[in-house]
Order: sequence, then C-alpha cells, then structure tokens
Amino acid sequence: MKGRLLEGKKGIIFGALNESSIAWKVAERAVEEGAEIILSNTLMALRLGDTDTLAEKLNTIVVAADATDIDDLDQLIKKAMEHFNGKFDFILHSIGMSPNVRKGRHYSDLDYNFLDKTLDVSAISFHKVIQTARKNDAINEWGSIVGLSYVAAQRTFYGYNDMADAKSLLESIARSFGYIYGQEKKVRINTISQSPTPTTAGKGVKGFDHLLDFSERMSPLGNATAEECADYCLTLFSDLTKKVTMQNLFHDGGFSSMGMSLQAMQQYDKSFEYDKEHPFD
Amino acid sequence: MKGRLLEGKKGIIFGALNESSIAWKVAERAVEEGAEIILSNTLMALRLGDTDTLAEKLNTIVVAADATDIDDLDQLIKKAMEHFNGKFDFILHSIGMSPNVRKGRHYSDLDYNFLDKTLDVSAISFHKVIQTARKNDAINEWGSIVGLSYVAAQRTFYGYNDMADAKSLLESIARSFGYIYGQEKKVRINTISQSPTPTTAGKGVKGFDHLLDFSERMSPLGNATAEECADYCLTLFSDLTKKVTMQNLFHDGGFSSMGMSLQAMQQYDKSFEYDKEHPFD
Amino acid sequence: MKGRLLEGKKGIIFGALNESSIAWKVAERAVEEGAEIILSNTLMALRLGDTDTLAEKLNTIVVAADATDIDDLDQLIKKAMEHFNGKFDFILHSIGMSPNVRKGRHYSDLDYNFLDKTLDVSAISFHKVIQTARKNDAINEWGSIVGLSYVAAQRTFYGYNDMADAKSLLESIARSFGYIYGQEKKVRINTISQSPTPTTAGKGVKGFDHLLDFSERMSPLGNATAEECADYCLTLFSDLTKKVTMQNLFHDGGFSSMGMSLQAMQQYDKSFEYDKEHPFD
Amino acid sequence: MKGRLLEGKKGIIFGALNESSIAWKVAERAVEEGAEIILSNTLMALRLGDTDTLAEKLNTIVVAADATDIDDLDQLIKKAMEHFNGKFDFILHSIGMSPNVRKGRHYSDLDYNFLDKTLDVSAISFHKVIQTARKNDAINEWGSIVGLSYVAAQRTFYGYNDMADAKSLLESIARSFGYIYGQEKKVRINTISQSPTPTTAGKGVKGFDHLLDFSERMSPLGNATAEECADYCLTLFSDLTKKVTMQNLFHDGGFSSMGMSLQAMQQYDKSFEYDKEHPFD
Repeated sequence: MKGRLLEGKKGIIFGALNESSIAWKVAERAVEEGAEIILSNTLMALRLGDTDTLAEKLNTIVVAADATDIDDLDQLIKKAMEHFNGKFDFILHSIGMSPNVRKGRHYSDLDYNFLDKTLDVSAISFHKVIQTARKNDAINEWGSIVGLSYVAAQRTFYGYNDMADAKSLLESIARSFGYIYGQEKKVRINTISQSPTPTTAGKGVKGFDHLLDFSERMSPLGNATAEECADYCLTLFSDLTKKVTMQNLFHDGGFSSMGMSLQAMQQYDKSFEYDKEHPFD
Repeated sequence: MKGRLLEGKKGIIFGALNESSIAWKVAERAVEEGAEIILSNTLMALRLGDTDTLAEKLNTIVVAADATDIDDLDQLIKKAMEHFNGKFDFILHSIGMSPNVRKGRHYSDLDYNFLDKTLDVSAISFHKVIQTARKNDAINEWGSIVGLSYVAAQRTFYGYNDMADAKSLLESIARSFGYIYGQEKKVRINTISQSPTPTTAGKGVKGFDHLLDFSERMSPLGNATAEECADYCLTLFSDLTKKVTMQNLFHDGGFSSMGMSLQAMQQYDKSFEYDKEHPFD
Repeated sequence: MKGRLLEGKKGIIFGALNESSIAWKVAERAVEEGAEIILSNTLMALRLGDTDTLAEKLNTIVVAADATDIDDLDQLIKKAMEHFNGKFDFILHSIGMSPNVRKGRHYSDLDYNFLDKTLDVSAISFHKVIQTARKNDAINEWGSIVGLSYVAAQRTFYGYNDMADAKSLLESIARSFGYIYGQEKKVRINTISQSPTPTTAGKGVKGFDHLLDFSERMSPLGNATAEECADYCLTLFSDLTKKVTMQNLFHDGGFSSMGMSLQAMQQYDKSFEYDKEHPFD
Repeated sequence: MKGRLLEGKKGIIFGALNESSIAWKVAERAVEEGAEIILSNTLMALRLGDTDTLAEKLNTIVVAADATDIDDLDQLIKKAMEHFNGKFDFILHSIGMSPNVRKGRHYSDLDYNFLDKTLDVSAISFHKVIQTARKNDAINEWGSIVGLSYVAAQRTFYGYNDMADAKSLLESIARSFGYIYGQEKKVRINTISQSPTPTTAGKGVKGFDHLLDFSERMSPLGNATAEECADYCLTLFSDLTKKVTMQNLFHDGGFSSMGMSLQAMQQYDKSFEYDKEHPFD
C-alpha cells in the first residue's frame, strides 16, 4: 500500500541502524507516503550500521548526533530546520541501550553508572530531543512525536533488566511533556509499546527466542513485525490521529491484554509430558 | 483530506442517528476514503433520525435492526453479505442507552430491569453483533471491529450512572472476543474511548455542559470532536493497524492522562474568588 | 496469629460454601480477630454445602438469600440489623457462577439468557447487596465492602469465558457505588483480585490445574491461598485501611505485574525439548 | 487503636524529618504495634529536622545515611543488623526531592543535572537501598519493603514537574526488584500512592493548596492524612498481606478512580458565576 498519508509532512527519524531496525522501516514507509525525512544516529552507530545506505536510497541526509548531548541535539534541530526550510512535523525516537544488559549485570547487582547511562540513553534522551525541539520552536502545530516502548514498562520480564525501568521513565516523559507541548503548540507525544522484535537491540535480550515464541503464541494476531510497527507509526504521524496524545499504545497483536491463550497453554502442557518422560531431570 | 485509505473495504456502521452522531461522521469519512458501507439502526431511531438522508447522500442502504435481537442481527449480516457480494471488513458499533439515566434513577436507586436494558443495549449488543458476524463467517481476515467507549469505564463521573458499568462491560467484551476472533480469523476488536461529545446521546448526560468545559480545559489538545473521532476510526479500519487488538484506545486530547492542568485549575481558582465575594452562599 | 483487629466489628459474609471457600476462611479469621458475623448463601448452596457446620462452629446464624433477589436481600439486611442490634460494618461478596461455563458454551457461542444469569449472579448481585444495604442505612460510617475478583477482568484467559466480563462489571460497580457510598456515608468499596484458588468454583474452570501451575511459576511469591486471601480481607475490613476505596487490589503473589518469569520460562523451555523428541506429534 | 500487629518485627524507616512527615507517623505507629525500628535520614535532614527527638521518644537510634550513597547504605544496613542482632523485616522509603522544582525550572526547561539528582534521590535510591539490603542478606523471609508514590506517576499534574517521572521510575523499580526479591527470599516490594499530603515536601509543590482542595472534593472519602497512611503502611508490613507484591496501591480516598465528583463540579460551577460577574477579567 502506498499513499499520500504523509504528503507535505517532514520529520526526523532517530535510530535507523540497519534493515532490521524499526526506525529503518518507518523511514522507508514515511517516504513512500509522501514525507520528507532526515535520519539521525550516533557517530558510533553510523560507523557500525548502514544508515548511510538508507539515506542514499531515500535521497536524504544523515546528521550525526548523540541524543544525550544537548549541543548535538541543538545542532541537529537547527540543521533539520535548515534542510526543511522551516519547521517540521514529526519525530521518531527509537533509541535504547543498557550497559547493564550488555555487561551481564543482574538487576540485583546493577552498576549505577551503567544505570544512569541506560536511563540517559533510553529515556532522558527523549526529553532532551523534545526540549531542544521546543526551544527552537521547531515543530509545526499538530506535529507528532513518537517513542518506542515495550510492555516491560508495565510488567516484569526476567532478563529485561533496567530497560524496564527506562521504558517506564520514557512513557512518563511522554505524558509529562505531552501535556506541555500539547497545551502550547498542539504537538502530541505518544509511545508505541511494540511486540518483541528481532532487531539488533531486541536480539541482545537474554532468552529472546523463547520469549518470542511465547509472545507469538500468547498474541491472538501473533507478534507485530517491524514493518507493521512502521505502518502504525505512520498513522500517528498523520492528521488522522490529531487528538491522540500522552498515550502508550500497544502494538502487539493483543499480547498486553492476554492472561493465557490456549495456544501458549498447549505448548506449556507439553513440558509436563517432558517431565513425565524425564522423571530424574 | 481525502484519500484511498479504505479502498476496497466494506463495512457496517451502527448508530448514525443524525449529523451530530459520531457514526454519521464515520460513514461519511469511510466513503470518502474509498469504502463501501451500509448503515443500520433500530426502527425507532430510523423514524426519529435522519439515517435515510445519509444513506441517500452516500448512495447506500439502511437495514433496520435491533442490535439486541439475534434474529434481526442475523438478517442484517446476511443482507450485508448479499449487498457486498460476500464478506466484509469492518463494523462500527456506536450504540448506547440507559433507561436509568433517561428516567432519572440515581445509581443508588437503580431499576434493575432498566439496568439489564442498559447493559443489553450498550454492551451485550456488541457481543451479539460479533457472535452473529462470526457465525456467518462474515468478516474477511484482518477485518476490524470498533466500539465506542468513554473514560467512565475506568473512572467515576457523577451522573454517568450505569453507563459507566456498561462501558466497562463493553471494553471487556472487546478483549474477550478479540482473543477468539483474532486467533481464528485475524479479526481485530478494539474500543475507542472518546472525549465527551455533544451528540444527541452525550447531551442527555446531567451537567454535560460544565463537564465539557472541564474536560476541554483538562485536555492539552482540547476535547476530540466527532469528526476527529471519525478520522481515528478510519485508521483502525485501515491496514495500517493490523496488529492492534483487544485495546481500549483513548481519543481524548490527552484527558485520560491528566491529573490537573493549569488551565482547569485557573478556572477552578475563580470559584474561591466567588466564595470570597459571596460569603453567605 | 490471632488478634483484635476487628474487635467490635460486625458483618455479613456471602458465599461460604465449604472449607475450601475463601468466604469460609474469611468468616473463621474475622471471628478470630474479634468480629461478629452472620453467614448468607442461597438455599441451594445451603443444601449442597456445609455452611451450617461453619455457623455452628462460629456460633452464629445463617440466613438464606438469593443475592439476585431484592426481597431476599432486604429481609437478610433487616435480619442482620436485628441480629446485630443495629448497623454493621462490613460485607464480603464472594459469589460467582456462569451457566455458560457450566454447560460448556464457548464464548463465541454464548447463550444470552445464560449470560444474563452470569452477570446477574456474579456482578449485579454486588450492586443489589449494596443498594439494599444503603436503603436500609445498614452500614456504619467507615464500613467496608469487599467483592472478590480475578485478573481476567483485565486480561483474557482462555476458558474463563463470560466470567471475565462479569468480573469487569463487578469491578466497575465497586467504583461507581464506591463514589456514592463513600461520599455519603464514608463506606468504602473495593474488590480483591485473587490468585486462581482451588475452591469449588475455581476448579470448574477448564484447564485449571495447568493454569494453576503457570500462575504459580509466574508469581514471585507463588499463588495466594484462600487463607492468605482471608487475612488480606481482614485488613480491608479493619480501621487501618479507612481511605482505600474504589480500588481493585491484586492479591496474587505478584502475578498481575509479571510478563515472564525465569521459572515459568524454564518450564516452557522443556516443551521444546518435548517437540524435539516427538517430531511427528 | 493499639495492637500487636507488628509484634516481633523490626525495620528501618527513612525520611522522618518532622512531625508532619508520613515516615514520622509510620515510625510512631509501628512502635505502638510492637515493632522495633531504627530511623535514617541524611545529615542535612538530621540537622534541619527533628529526627533525634523522635528517636528519643521511641527509644531508638538514628543512623545518618545518604540514600544515594552505596557506602552509606552499606554501613546503615550493617549497623541495623548489629542493632537488631540479625536480620530485620521491613523498610519504609519515604524520600523524594527535585532540584528542578526547588529552583523553579519549568518541565520544558529542565536542568539535566538537576533531573539526574531528582531521579537519584527520589527513585534510584530505592533500588540502592534494596540492592544493599539484599547483598547483606538483611531481610527476613516474608519481609516487606514500601516506597511512597503519588498518582502523578500515572497522570500529569501541572507543577509536579520531574517528580512525576521520578515516581514512575520508583514504581517500576518496585516491580522489577519485587520479582527478584520475591522469588528468591519471599520479600515483597510495593509502593503506596498517597493523597497529596501537607508535609514539608508536599507544601513545596506549586499551587498546593488549591490542588489539595480539588483533591479533597474529588475524593469520596476525602484526602488521606499522614496518620492514615501510616496505618495503611502497617498492614503492608504485617503478616496479613504476605502475597501482595509488585503493586502500586492507591491510598487516596478514592481520588485515583474518580473522573468528576458532584462536589468538585459544584465548586467548579461557581467559577462560571464569577466569570459572569466579572465579564472584563
């Protein structure tokens, strides 16, 4: 499906590392729907990833910026306004990283400098991006800002570690700033709580494969893919959702509203068969 | 904005009474976006309202049906399939009514026959519509069913009475049936929790004007209008939201995530000035 | 632990069928903590169950009442006030039943007369009890009313069927009436969302054993027992929780806040071992 | 009411600054109910407040500790274990502070060093306290840890600023660590979401008086006092709530479940009378 849903809209997309990134799909789909975009990522990510390839394909520019660094963000926003010849309409924040997860620190043995880093990169950067955009009066009325979250913000998943806390903080920032930016400039701010997605970041989480299976069986419509998430983002950038703000929106095939599905339970049941056949395990 | 968002999609819209109805706006916008629709309402509503005018304007048919009556619904679904020459894609359920509210029965003095009626018309009818559609295998894969709700399902608003309970039940039905229909046929079921809207039904609620003012001042983006609600519905009927199911989605300018806004508090503050000037009230 | 937590308090306990009933444990513990109680149940339940034995043991009376029948309830409340020589302080509503579950009707093939019965017995009866108590001005200021719920009110569990909708309705009634009764008479109304409990009612749910296992492994503290639920009820009847109202309180060992535990996932993992060993299943 | 609810229990109470502090009331009531406690606060708070007076009155000790400093916490926990002659049973975390609020920085113009401080003092300190307690294996099985929160974690209140985000983070930490500590040692972790309370900290929030009035009129039972909050804490420290964990528990007279009360609306209504009488304001 290609259309004109975002005709005339302009935006910044953070976090398109490679083809498996949700932000990558959002960038592609946004352009398909008529938007102009620019891409941003950290220098490190630009070196490791394929963002330049995407920029070339979409005929746009990449601006390096560390989203935890106000000066970087200020320059990015100014460049964006230069590039767009004025204000723009949307921002996608798809940024998250936990040194505690990477270094295998258990949640009961956190390194607090790492935790600060987790929160700064994965949540506070969202505030910094928005505050900097607002200070530059960079976003048009009825603009739309989206951050990516996960249901771990509401419920504990073993191994997700301090990223759960970061996502809670991220969602809170969406509400807190959504009030101010909405009141003042009609800019809406929401988070999408996406199914576990086999992106580079997602795969880093411990036991990811089996979690993916469980999530797939628990979700009546199955896990949502990165492509589907991109489509959903487009609706939030479009003028069709002008009055949706300060929300955390589950895009997860129904997972968040499930307690137990027959499909997950049938799989679970087999574990007892296994136990019967292996009584000494 | 006119587009092709619903190109090739077909659906039934319940509850388009008159121009101020949300369902009316949904019908108009759905057709603008390329959908074919049919309208349904009770005989009584057809007599009192302007549904026929809308049908004429949109060049479609109206099928009378009492959404609490299984036989009526079965005939409606069959007629729809005939009209559409097969399965269809979406349903809007915009139906609600409380005899307790109408007759001024306080929530602590409910007439229980009235309560049964409230629940049957405003919530169980949603189950009946879905069950009947499913029994007729009437909905295409990746179809979408939407019911209209209100934040009173989560928080108590004086005067909203047993409609609050009906909305809670409605949202629960969306989850319960969303699991089954999603698993089986990829049909998604959601509710939209809409701002108070000055429709014929909305205006019936006690103290509606002042509630509207409070809600407007509390919501950073202001109350969502019926037109905006229609736009939002379209996103849920479109293929851009395929993995959103079993959700209650707030479309309310941010109201649901507000505790207290400066704007509402400034208005509230004046009441104390009034008290000072009228010490003997 | 025996104490004087409910010294001087009086209350009605609905639904003590037999020793495995939560209400049974509440009755025993309430008396241990110094309360006077009376028991109520339907005639049918009185015939099938052991309520009389409990009454004898606790040296109190049983009053037969169908909690869906206003006349029965009115007589019960009046008898209670006679028995207690005036107003009383608390009510436990532990009543639920679904003919659709009993008769094996699938949620996509509900009998709507059965659904009415499910809602009337399991949810509306809560309103009827409270409305009747209030009309008789039967409850002391700072009294406390508790209903028993389950997390299926928020998330779908296959097989729980229309009881999920009934529990949503029950929790909504607690909020709606909690506002009125709280404002007027300082009476608080809450629901406890209890772990799946192997009571006579609980055991009727399809696949209950494996659900219990899953729930046990998902809950950091394990499933809450009927005895523990009774203890928790006592806190809500006591003067220590005077300002808690209109809440649904999870008493479930943490289940409601879990997405996935290591313990449940380790069990789930074995199912894949089973699959490997039985590739042709 | 004095009882033996906490007979034999021992715990640490953080944040008893002066008589208006919730922690102060908890300390007094815990001792009344048979607990042994020790008090902790920062050096600064000890200098400015009356903690020593309380310690004297309760015949216990004060240990100075900066709850953001791991070394301080480690020494505190070790001293507590020495004082108690072994493990203890409960912790109250009543700590919160925002330099952004204090210095009048608007949420759209945050100082990010201040934000780090807000999060560290008001939320991360909760993790630090728990992690340190666990590393010292300081808490008995079925122990209980409570943090104090506010509904701003769920809904935005103008002026509450970055404290809202801190409270969201705090509640997430309760869930994340509740899973681990519960699974391992049966220790439960919850937060109480308390009514706005005129403590020294509470009074610092902008427009606090009118918020208090609004909250009072919206809450069917009125705002919960510090004394009542203390009573509620006791239930969570007692053995009667053994299976409640990872929860955020509203202790707020019903506020969190209210959308609009007649009482608040009647006051709000007067503001329109004021507007009529002052058309040129």
